[in-house]
Amino acid sequence: MKFSIDNSYFYSVISELSRSVSANSDSHMLNGIKITAHPEGLTLVVSNRDFFVEKTIPNNSDEKLLIYESGSVVAPAKYFVELVKKLPEEIMIEVHENNKLSIRSKEINVNLSGFDCEEYPVLPLMNFRDYIHMQAEPLLEMVRQTAFAASVSDARPVLTGILISFQKNKVTCAATNSHRLALREINIEAVIEGSFIVPQSSIKELIRLFSNSQEAISIYVSENYLVFKTFKLSLYTRLIEGNYPNLSSLIPSDSKTVVTISKSNLLKGIDRASLFARNSRNNNVKLELISHNRLRISSHSSDFGKIEEIQQIVNIHGNQDLSICLNSTFLLEALKSIADKEVTLSFSGSMRPVLIKPNSSNHHLHLISPVRG
Amino acid sequence: MKFSIDNSYFYSVISELSRSVSANSDSHMLNGIKITAHPEGLTLVVSNRDFFVEKTIPNNSDEKLLIYESGSVVAPAKYFVELVKKLPEEIMIEVHENNKLSIRSKEINVNLSGFDCEEYPVLPLMNFRDYIHMQAEPLLEMVRQTAFAASVSDARPVLTGILISFQKNKVTCAATNSHRLALREINIEAVIEGSFIVPQSSIKELIRLFSNSQEAISIYVSENYLVFKTFKLSLYTRLIEGNYPNLSSLIPSDSKTVVTISKSNLLKGIDRASLFARNSRNNNVKLELISHNRLRISSHSSDFGKIEEIQQIVNIHGNQDLSICLNSTFLLEALKSIADKEVTLSFSGSMRPVLIKPNSSNHHLHLISPVRG
Repeated sequence: MKFSIDNSYFYSVISELSRSVSANSDSHMLNGIKITAHPEGLTLVVSNRDFFVEKTIPNNSDEKLLIYESGSVVAPAKYFVELVKKLPEEIMIEVHENNKLSIRSKEINVNLSGFDCEEYPVLPLMNFRDYIHMQAEPLLEMVRQTAFAASVSDARPVLTGILISFQKNKVTCAATNSHRLALREINIEAVIEGSFIVPQSSIKELIRLFSNSQEAISIYVSENYLVFKTFKLSLYTRLIEGNYPNLSSLIPSDSKTVVTISKSNLLKGIDRASLFARNSRNNNVKLELISHNRLRISSHSSDFGKIEEIQQIVNIHGNQDLSICLNSTFLLEALKSIADKEVTLSFSGSMRPVLIKPNSSNHHLHLISPVRG
Repeated sequence: MKFSIDNSYFYSVISELSRSVSANSDSHMLNGIKITAHPEGLTLVVSNRDFFVEKTIPNNSDEKLLIYESGSVVAPAKYFVELVKKLPEEIMIEVHENNKLSIRSKEINVNLSGFDCEEYPVLPLMNFRDYIHMQAEPLLEMVRQTAFAASVSDARPVLTGILISFQKNKVTCAATNSHRLALREINIEAVIEGSFIVPQSSIKELIRLFSNSQEAISIYVSENYLVFKTFKLSLYTRLIEGNYPNLSSLIPSDSKTVVTISKSNLLKGIDRASLFARNSRNNNVKLELISHNRLRISSHSSDFGKIEEIQQIVNIHGNQDLSICLNSTFLLEALKSIADKEVTLSFSGSMRPVLIKPNSSNHHLHLISPVRG
């Protein structure tokens, strides 16, 4: 293997990729970048236990890549990235016997010990015929609006993942830790049907890698993998096996009290009331309806003090007698994911889940179970 | 105590001060901000085991401070700062019985438990008659150019501090960990004579607090404290007791080889050669003179590889036979502190300290002991 490339472009690519590499992985291989030079260009692969990322750089492109000799090697990511960063201008990279990398730039010579590609994990075989096409922006928006609600406990592995479900005319993203649920739908024409549970780390990677993408993303499925793909970049994620809870049975169909309120005011109020949250077991914040269509938001810490404020409600329907305690972190995260100016909170009683929706849409909802005050 | 103040200005002041508060200190007091309201304005004090910082806000100033009632309290810094940040517009702060703070803004009411000022550490008594006047910029430059060389080990407490020494016509800053030394002098008219060993943490605070100061700084001394003071801001630092090493005896007066070289090239070369430094016991980098006035910089790691480069020397005097191993971190930090384009390295043999100076000045020097290769 032998190629030359502009150092600052190459650095931008491999430093971006190296962030996907498992930090402190036990495996030398998972700490590496697999580099393959071939007549069409360079293919770079990084991976961890949840996903593979594959990036290609075409030969003879603007990036001053010139392939002199095909071949492949696994380079230790941390040193390789730091080194490329510190080298000036064009660099020449070559592999010698025993996977020894030689990296040269002007009067600077570096030898770096690489690893044998034979030992690197192999990309899963995929059927690249059927796929779903989605613009990056709505896809990333829907995973951002839901992924935070997934469980961080391994007690029920399926709940640590994000459900992505394709039906004929829509795609749904959902996540729940069994105390709260976030759900978002988008109408699309889907040629594929099925539900897939994607690990949280792969969703973070999806957001990180494609955030600035102007291209549409193609989604390919197999039994064990989903692939998110643009022209030069692919993310292969493993899937979590198991049965995801039936979501439609969880969402309450009627409610006793429906309150419409300014989202940004409520968000700021809950944020203030969560001041002592770190010292409270449940991060509790108390919501109470009081006279003249007003909402009292309060919290207290026996050690540090108490905080209380009154907010005006835009609209209220149903029973005006309400007092409920909620986890302030859950409430804050749900509100932050909503783009509307106003939100609707539907209450069915002080021990029943609260349904939170943007005022203008039925395609986005959050459900939060109350806690004891 | 009762006063009102603009929340965003007050937040900027107390968040700046709260960074000086000991994180996770055992003492409630050291986690607090002492607030004193008096007819002239507000005085805020924070402290840790090494220093006090005192800041005043004048009454009736642009900052919309209005004092209604004198008094004082110690507020828990972390909650107080977060709270002021989250409150809108003007806030009213009042102390009730048992040091209970009431903080109000519009329809928001907060009660916060404060502490009794009687238990707060008392500022040291100082003689504010004699002082040295220095512009902030040269003072901060000289401590920045030296403080990094202090020891991080408690084995010899005096070496953990930075020596500030006033003589009739100059002030000297120095720091050493016994393997390297940094020294910087400035000519000034000093009415005070004496040497003072200042803790590293106080020096960091000095740099942080006064970095944007356009005012001159007055330096006051007592037996146990130094005070750095501008109109509204004072830093009181304790001093480390003990005898500082005699520096003039350490600095070699002659040398076998004197090399002048581009600072930025050398810095980049050492930076590259230190790639494997984390895996090498001494962060070693090897410097060798080779034919045609050139310097070879190299390092190696038995596990990961080796790196080597050749640089052109601007000027060389004396013996051309030189091979020496240095701690790359020490060398990098010394080079980074030098503003000149060219540096002079004076060698007295492979096991004698290397003297590093900017090419144009005798007021700034670094001494680094070699390591075994």
